[in-house]
Amino acid sequence: MKASQFLISTQKEAPADAEVASHKLMMRAGMIKKLGAGIYTYMPMGLRVIRKVEAIVREEMDRAGAVELTMPVVQPAELWQESGRFQAYGPELLRIKDRHERDFIVQPTSEECITDIGRQELRSYKQLPRNLYQIQTKFRDERRPRFGLMRGREFTMKDAYSFDRDLDGAKRSYQQMAKAYRAIFDRFGLRYRAVAADSGAIGGDVSQEFQVIAATGEDAIVYSQGSEYAANMEKAEALAPAAPRPGPARAMEKTPTPGKSTCEDVAQLLSVPLQTTVKSLVLATERLNEQGEIVETLVWLLLIRGDHDMNEVKVSKVAGLNKGFRFATAAEIVDHFGAEPGYLGPIGTHKPVKVVVDREVAVMADWICGANEEDFHLTGVNWGRDLPEPDLVADIRNVVEGDLSPDGQGRLSIERGIEIGHIFVLGTKYSEAMDATFLDEDGKPKLFQMGCYGIGITRLPAAAIEQNHDERGIIWPDALAPFTVVVCPIGMDRSAEVKAAAEKLYGELAAAGVDVILDDRGERPGAMFADWELIGVPHRVVISERGLKEGQFEYQHRRDAAATKVAASEALGFVKGRLKA
Amino acid sequence: MKASQFLISTQKEAPADAEVASHKLMMRAGMIKKLGAGIYTYMPMGLRVIRKVEAIVREEMDRAGAVELTMPVVQPAELWQESGRFQAYGPELLRIKDRHERDFIVQPTSEECITDIGRQELRSYKQLPRNLYQIQTKFRDERRPRFGLMRGREFTMKDAYSFDRDLDGAKRSYQQMAKAYRAIFDRFGLRYRAVAADSGAIGGDVSQEFQVIAATGEDAIVYSQGSEYAANMEKAEALAPAAPRPGPARAMEKTPTPGKSTCEDVAQLLSVPLQTTVKSLVLATERLNEQGEIVETLVWLLLIRGDHDMNEVKVSKVAGLNKGFRFATAAEIVDHFGAEPGYLGPIGTHKPVKVVVDREVAVMADWICGANEEDFHLTGVNWGRDLPEPDLVADIRNVVEGDLSPDGQGRLSIERGIEIGHIFVLGTKYSEAMDATFLDEDGKPKLFQMGCYGIGITRLPAAAIEQNHDERGIIWPDALAPFTVVVCPIGMDRSAEVKAAAEKLYGELAAAGVDVILDDRGERPGAMFADWELIGVPHRVVISERGLKEGQFEYQHRRDAAATKVAASEALGFVKGRLKA
Repeated sequence: MKASQFLISTQKEAPADAEVASHKLMMRAGMIKKLGAGIYTYMPMGLRVIRKVEAIVREEMDRAGAVELTMPVVQPAELWQESGRFQAYGPELLRIKDRHERDFIVQPTSEECITDIGRQELRSYKQLPRNLYQIQTKFRDERRPRFGLMRGREFTMKDAYSFDRDLDGAKRSYQQMAKAYRAIFDRFGLRYRAVAADSGAIGGDVSQEFQVIAATGEDAIVYSQGSEYAANMEKAEALAPAAPRPGPARAMEKTPTPGKSTCEDVAQLLSVPLQTTVKSLVLATERLNEQGEIVETLVWLLLIRGDHDMNEVKVSKVAGLNKGFRFATAAEIVDHFGAEPGYLGPIGTHKPVKVVVDREVAVMADWICGANEEDFHLTGVNWGRDLPEPDLVADIRNVVEGDLSPDGQGRLSIERGIEIGHIFVLGTKYSEAMDATFLDEDGKPKLFQMGCYGIGITRLPAAAIEQNHDERGIIWPDALAPFTVVVCPIGMDRSAEVKAAAEKLYGELAAAGVDVILDDRGERPGAMFADWELIGVPHRVVISERGLKEGQFEYQHRRDAAATKVAASEALGFVKGRLKA
Repeated sequence: MKASQFLISTQKEAPADAEVASHKLMMRAGMIKKLGAGIYTYMPMGLRVIRKVEAIVREEMDRAGAVELTMPVVQPAELWQESGRFQAYGPELLRIKDRHERDFIVQPTSEECITDIGRQELRSYKQLPRNLYQIQTKFRDERRPRFGLMRGREFTMKDAYSFDRDLDGAKRSYQQMAKAYRAIFDRFGLRYRAVAADSGAIGGDVSQEFQVIAATGEDAIVYSQGSEYAANMEKAEALAPAAPRPGPARAMEKTPTPGKSTCEDVAQLLSVPLQTTVKSLVLATERLNEQGEIVETLVWLLLIRGDHDMNEVKVSKVAGLNKGFRFATAAEIVDHFGAEPGYLGPIGTHKPVKVVVDREVAVMADWICGANEEDFHLTGVNWGRDLPEPDLVADIRNVVEGDLSPDGQGRLSIERGIEIGHIFVLGTKYSEAMDATFLDEDGKPKLFQMGCYGIGITRLPAAAIEQNHDERGIIWPDALAPFTVVVCPIGMDRSAEVKAAAEKLYGELAAAGVDVILDDRGERPGAMFADWELIGVPHRVVISERGLKEGQFEYQHRRDAAATKVAASEALGFVKGRLKA
């Protein structure tokens, strides 16, 4: 490609609404163009990157035996009513009516459509296992789209769905996808982690997220420094402390803590470590009668060490809370505890509350909690002596740096990641709702065991940039770069020699199958280099009159601090040697 | 590809709603699957065809210097309000609201979006000319979607848009696209015609349709047997007859024609050629005041020879009718003519009507028309004698077989076609509405001269099938076939020799870059052959034990009546020799 024939539209400034590096840089590099909130045109430079992502995904999916199809963007509501998601899906689902006032949706994902195809096309166990995928436009009407392609409304996803005879088969299909995903992300040349993820209602170790490591990532990733263990924050288990609970050393005392309503403030006031305090979180659950009226409201008190954070997904698995919960209202709190938040605790409540104790808190001695009286805390609190032994102990907190790894090997570290893939065993969730069966060997209909596997095709370039950029712009891994090599002639219009040398190298690289662009726009060197550093082409060759006098070109990788002089006659081989295969 | 790893889902029967061959065969061959009215999943077999269409289009667009981008499917209404199309576009435009009740549309085409990009990105004449294209999902909410992919609601279109400094430039861009389109359709291996098309308000010879020739086509295509002239029915001019009008030979007579209200019936009753009759068509136009109230209704009488048909596009260009017209109501007809339709004519109307005379009628003598009295016609009517010489003569009819070619060379023939491409000079239609300008050499802002260029990517396979099928199924041209060659081993599971020979040939063809599928499903020969004939793979090699004994395979092209024996050792070269490069 010659730059004069391509559309290069770099910008000096990023728009004001661009908050993160990838959004700013993709806008400045002319890769995307905003059309509306969370809706972008993929400009030629950006589309080249997306096409490279697609090609790698497609190759590895095909290699793994998956077969590509394309399902419609606009889908009739009927199937979504069959699965129940037309009603259950939140406002992210874009619901529309056609000219005949019939209901449709714009697909956010395609479980319903593929299950419908499966129940019609896969009639016999002989046709299983089967994995079908598409790379197709999706739409999710995010309330607050932001960060460019990171959280857009219209985006491209690769979504694959597997059909199996039984759960063992589904797990094999899942493992095959896990392997394919590793192959895909390895080829992208990004640092990533495959982490165990919570799989919701299905249970079992049957969900993994693929996270691109980046300091700006929205997700916390937990991994062991002593083993292969890795999980997301929702999934990572906080083990019960190995050491037994120490005996009481202090008496319980009611201590004035005026205006100190947080654990941090109390610890500071009393000059004790934050780890000796316990925070109280109050939840509520409701029991409904058959008419859907509330017949009983239960108030729950969760006790978590002062320096720890509650993990909502873990809480939602506690017996009694696993049917849904909410934070208690101010009125409910005062009614049950006789005090305002900030001074709550398990001792001396006005009305009985259900207490859930984090594993860590269950082995604490001489701890501090609210006294259920404004401006007072209790210190030296001990289980069994000041209040009954904990009844309901559970893992309800986020792990922190230094916690023991759940596999018992090493201690946990935490880093940030951007989710770009997610694989799942779905089980019979959709096949049951939509009565999707095949005839098994015994001649009887049986529900499909399904799996689903997503990759955020248009999110991936954004994640890659979050991981790979500097103050001058993007630094693409070879596999994702819009162009792998840029040939920058200086004074091409003045010097026939420079022009000839540049076109020769460009021609040779192109003939060798290298994705090369020749910058024949005639820009001044400063502007030209700034453009390509912003765009992030990893390999650059500069050809100048001065260099040619010595028979030399200058090669510089986007990460190199300085250029390397290369004999013009050896440039082709030299550049090829620097490319990642 | 091995068939066992692919999804082959042929059907014995086509669904009841499939009317045309391409719809039936694509459904039966398992290429598409209906999800809703006019909404289809592209199944793996069909997607392979679509990908081949896309690849050829992309290659030739790139070769012509166009640059690919991708615009959003869901677009904010603002731009469409700016161009006026949000209001003006009919119910085919799918209008939707997001969660915040903001208006959006699902793109039926992307003139607005590209004009917006042009006015932001193309600021200087130095960046022109520029041609940008996308291959992207479109949606048109057809009132009556039908014929499968031929007239669907969701479909894929390649739409390109050119930006030029001036109209000459726009015409050059247009010519470049015309050339690229010929290259594209040549590569598809289809019989097609590029025909001049009516370009609506813009005028000039600046619109062409690319029509795949097929007996079942919706469009009539007119071409000269003596020249390169070709046009669609709307565009093809009916020349004024060269011979002068004969003198009157008969007196005008009022002739009883009881119950004969059509030209055909009258001609039969009177035993005269249909060509001596003239049919009367009555239109109405309205003049509105500033409040939009009708202040005057004008009634028009169109006179066309009995065997000719009115051409609405031509009528809409007649002065006085070019602002919109409608057919007159029954009441208006009786009021003006004093008679019911079937017996109308220009002589003796109750009230004055504007008469528009087709060129052919203007040179007729002794003709027959309605007498404006039920059950009576006038015969022997002559211009100048029985009624004034025609005032307004125009080309308002469809051409017919045998008419003179408008270029004066040869006579016209008519065949049926399916429109799969359309190229257009748009002029400043959108740039003016959206104030899209660039800075010209003189430093002044100037409106872009634009062009637009479409190809129906998903319609094309349907058109190809309409042209290329027989009673057994589809017959793909090599360039569009889902697989170019199928290797069919008979008794692969019984005979190790057959298996080895089949896999060897399959491997060799694949290594030679041939898109080959090995049918390793173990189907019986009859079912296997029927599948591949239905699917339409053009080249088939059968390997059997019997053949192997003689060291032979059997080759058969999908169009061949019988198989050709080929020495096994020469099969690779033989098959490669049969492929269209």
